Amino acid sequence: MDDIITLSYGSGGKKTSHLIEDIILPSLSCDELNKLSDGAVLDVFSNKIAFSTDSFVVSPYFFPGGDIGKLAVCGTVNDLSVCGAKPEYLSLSLIIEEGFKIEELKKIIKSIEETSKICNVKIVTGDTKVVEKGKGDGIYINTSGIGRLIYEDLGKDKISEGDAVIVTGCIGDHGAAIMASRNNLVDEFNVKSDCAPVYELAQCILQYGDKVKIMRDPTRGGVATTLNEFVENSEFTIEISEEKIPINVETNNLCEILGIDPLYSANEGKILAIVDSSVAENVVNDLRKIELGKDAAIIGYVTKNFPSKVVLHTNLGGKRVLSKLTGAQLPRIC
Amino acid sequence: MDDIITLSYGSGGKKTSHLIEDIILPSLSCDELNKLSDGAVLDVFSNKIAFSTDSFVVSPYFFPGGDIGKLAVCGTVNDLSVCGAKPEYLSLSLIIEEGFKIEELKKIIKSIEETSKICNVKIVTGDTKVVEKGKGDGIYINTSGIGRLIYEDLGKDKISEGDAVIVTGCIGDHGAAIMASRNNLVDEFNVKSDCAPVYELAQCILQYGDKVKIMRDPTRGGVATTLNEFVENSEFTIEISEEKIPINVETNNLCEILGIDPLYSANEGKILAIVDSSVAENVVNDLRKIELGKDAAIIGYVTKNFPSKVVLHTNLGGKRVLSKLTGAQLPRIC
Repeated sequence: MDDIITLSYGSGGKKTSHLIEDIILPSLSCDELNKLSDGAVLDVFSNKIAFSTDSFVVSPYFFPGGDIGKLAVCGTVNDLSVCGAKPEYLSLSLIIEEGFKIEELKKIIKSIEETSKICNVKIVTGDTKVVEKGKGDGIYINTSGIGRLIYEDLGKDKISEGDAVIVTGCIGDHGAAIMASRNNLVDEFNVKSDCAPVYELAQCILQYGDKVKIMRDPTRGGVATTLNEFVENSEFTIEISEEKIPINVETNNLCEILGIDPLYSANEGKILAIVDSSVAENVVNDLRKIELGKDAAIIGYVTKNFPSKVVLHTNLGGKRVLSKLTGAQLPRIC
Repeated sequence: MDDIITLSYGSGGKKTSHLIEDIILPSLSCDELNKLSDGAVLDVFSNKIAFSTDSFVVSPYFFPGGDIGKLAVCGTVNDLSVCGAKPEYLSLSLIIEEGFKIEELKKIIKSIEETSKICNVKIVTGDTKVVEKGKGDGIYINTSGIGRLIYEDLGKDKISEGDAVIVTGCIGDHGAAIMASRNNLVDEFNVKSDCAPVYELAQCILQYGDKVKIMRDPTRGGVATTLNEFVENSEFTIEISEEKIPINVETNNLCEILGIDPLYSANEGKILAIVDSSVAENVVNDLRKIELGKDAAIIGYVTKNFPSKVVLHTNLGGKRVLSKLTGAQLPRIC
């Protein structure tokens, strides 16, 4: 076996077979994938499914709290989870830059194996491409996923005045971990990506049936951008209170030093949910019983005071409109 | 609107919304995609589905007979088709290099629109990432697809001695078109990619029910590599006759000048099928009634003469073992 990936590994010929048989299958083996067919034939046990895709280009591809492999599994599993589905099957497509170390590829595949076991999903089909040196950046990974739909009545149209806004834990940690890595601040700041599957949190919230209006995982663009997506082009306002927003001290400190607002910093293991206010406290209490949800909090409410806007009530008693992220606060965060 | 893609377009914020709303949705609008949710909720009308993924990194991304957009739709639709499924839904994930011309992106999206209409598939979910200049090469596209399984009894294990090998048309055209482009030979050689959906051809073959053993579309690595996949680790041999293999004169000439064997040159609109010999001539006659199948031919048979090997009977009366492609004949062909 070579030490690095060469262009031959993307030829579709012998080297591609080696890569699949020696590196990928030993970790990700399952009946469907082992067939190495052009596609996988799957049982879905349901007429309604959720389908999601994400390409991951995060830089660096190893970061505090995770790596691009863990992220690629969690990212798609989380998208399916917040749609109200149980994630079942993933595809895995790699775009590898010539010269990439096979040792690093093995680590990433191992991480994909471990994370997909935790998430109880199977990698059932895949693809590998290799691009010339200087036409990529180590490795890019696409995962697409299929989930069995369990709860289908989520949507922006369900939001109404008085609903509560819940976040399932401390905000901004993934973005902070990436920034710390890039700025060589990992030793000074104890920040770690929150990269984790949110399926259990989503199911916990969905126990409340039609009292749950919509859920999203606030990744790129952070909490502020996702909240904007909830109310844009609507008659509603989301008003949140700075003092209610859970945030790790170290993440907050790092954001302050780098001049970045944690409300725009990415999360990879959190849910933002809008629920009927009558159940909001119960939802939060239930979430707090789960390790990943121990810092869950009601951070605000839906009003009609400033249509289509997200408004932050600051610790100093002021109000600030939080628009969607403008510009590129942090490229290649996920 | 800007002229080029900047990093902000991948931020998940305002520019990403513009890109989706102004460039992608006008072409690819459908109920599922328009929701811009984290995933799409889909009816599948069946408990069995086929699921496939492919990342496309073809260079150049515009080539004679197609472009990366057309290829990205056909590629995944074809994988589903040869699995015995009716392609229904696609995901679309773009990795765009900073500086990419928005005019070119629009052309590619237009091409995706047209091709998905021809294939009768809907783009239901998507993702867009932007990487820094020098960390990509224009645009890379992943499509993943879901098809309703119509016929599920295909597989290598169905192959038996005496079966016929059918190809649905002239071989090697996609590889030839890419090579002509890269070598500035487009004016001298009238070669065009065969990039096209093969669903109709697949359905035509599948009329013959359990007489059909396996189908694949011979993309990267060409006909020779796919035939090897059929018999590797088996007791069977595939013996094909050079004189029976349909090939366009211009493709043949170009391959000769570049010293490339057309049996290893990629196809993007062909099927290789193994069928019971009792129906082989009828299958070919039916295929020939379809424009895309007009050059269909029986090119060989399954024997047990040289276990696990593919053997070519040459025009000169010799025999040659065709192994899987070794090395990278042509990187980034798809």
